[in-house]
Amino acid sequence: MPNSKIGRHYSQAFDTELQQAVDRLLQMAALTQQQLTDAIAAFVEADHARAEQVVASDHRVNDFEVDIDEHCLDILARRQPAASDLRLVLTVLKSINDIERIGDLAKRVAKTLLEQADTDRPNQAQLDEIDVMGHRVLHMLQRACVSFERMDATDALTVLRKDKEIDQDYDRIVAQSISAMSNDSSQVGPSMQLFVIARALERIGDHSRNICQHVIFLCKGRNVAHFSDAELQQIVDKQRS
Amino acid sequence: MPNSKIGRHYSQAFDTELQQAVDRLLQMAALTQQQLTDAIAAFVEADHARAEQVVASDHRVNDFEVDIDEHCLDILARRQPAASDLRLVLTVLKSINDIERIGDLAKRVAKTLLEQADTDRPNQAQLDEIDVMGHRVLHMLQRACVSFERMDATDALTVLRKDKEIDQDYDRIVAQSISAMSNDSSQVGPSMQLFVIARALERIGDHSRNICQHVIFLCKGRNVAHFSDAELQQIVDKQRS
Repeated sequence: MPNSKIGRHYSQAFDTELQQAVDRLLQMAALTQQQLTDAIAAFVEADHARAEQVVASDHRVNDFEVDIDEHCLDILARRQPAASDLRLVLTVLKSINDIERIGDLAKRVAKTLLEQADTDRPNQAQLDEIDVMGHRVLHMLQRACVSFERMDATDALTVLRKDKEIDQDYDRIVAQSISAMSNDSSQVGPSMQLFVIARALERIGDHSRNICQHVIFLCKGRNVAHFSDAELQQIVDKQRS
Repeated sequence: MPNSKIGRHYSQAFDTELQQAVDRLLQMAALTQQQLTDAIAAFVEADHARAEQVVASDHRVNDFEVDIDEHCLDILARRQPAASDLRLVLTVLKSINDIERIGDLAKRVAKTLLEQADTDRPNQAQLDEIDVMGHRVLHMLQRACVSFERMDATDALTVLRKDKEIDQDYDRIVAQSISAMSNDSSQVGPSMQLFVIARALERIGDHSRNICQHVIFLCKGRNVAHFSDAELQQIVDKQRS
């Protein structure tokens, strides 16, 4: 991966170590993207085998997390990085925490299908809603990872803003679920399923937004976790990096 | 705070900086404990003024997070800590992430009351359930913070195990909510409130467990995020630190 932020140290071994941290993170992220793809499809199509694959792959995400965490700790201890190298290592450490949670939440979606009673199955219109929201979340996660790979703060801010649309999907699905249950008590099972899945997807959107915030931190050197949209724009517009 | 893990450097300024990181974290944690105390009491007693206080104090938690994050980054950049000092700084960085989420979740509990319609109000028996679960979670959070303050891995493991009881509370409240809604559609409002609150409390239990895992990492030098109970016991029993 060619990147302006890596590959300019007198020690080539150090460059390689930083690059490995980023590469492993992107592999871990790709795995959770696959998990999310599979979890959404499994739920919508009631594909139990595919849901079981998602659950079974969870330990691989956990292994990535521990492995990358230890690799970063090792870089900090031996290389004592400064400035943008230090930010890169911390960005990787923070991001793997979010990616691990994304894997957990994809597993939650898959498990919801596996624990589903026949009477809990949502109808086709409800499944279509989940399909649309799921793909919006997946797209946001994919783009957040691309902004990480490119270490592009402008890109990261554009992606971060997509979280609002996901929150709107979530609010709509929750309102529909509550209305369906209130009108017909036989709808409690399917509506609770929708609620749980929509909540998991909404949280994946939040973690994707966090990844974008970490990218902005990496490029601009500021912790922007609680910045307003205007403040974010200002930081991203500033020349630096 | 007397602690065997801080206070043995040739540079007294470095000791002070590490101590400040820990002290600020404990202040931040104390604030979220107060938020959780207030949020539970506010919900159970329908005390809107107290709920509003919880929401209003959220920015203070966020300010702590950014402040401690920057302090730790500064220590890493200037002091280039190694071994247990490095672990301490990383433990603080990981823990403030969990504490910030705990503050968010306490706010969620408070907001649930503030957005409550009259018809959503749970009955006394249901409120008692939330009160019991809430105090169990609060107690776990308090003890997790004490294990951090003492940097005591044995203590941290004892507290971490309490998460199972919280998960049982959660499962019971969710089952009761679903049953209530299924039998009587007028119960959808109150049951959904219970569900949302129980979910937030259960997540606070998870974050308290994470803090305990970070304490074990600090004391034992191993990332134990995905360890079984037997593996945890083995690591904690090992002499080291």
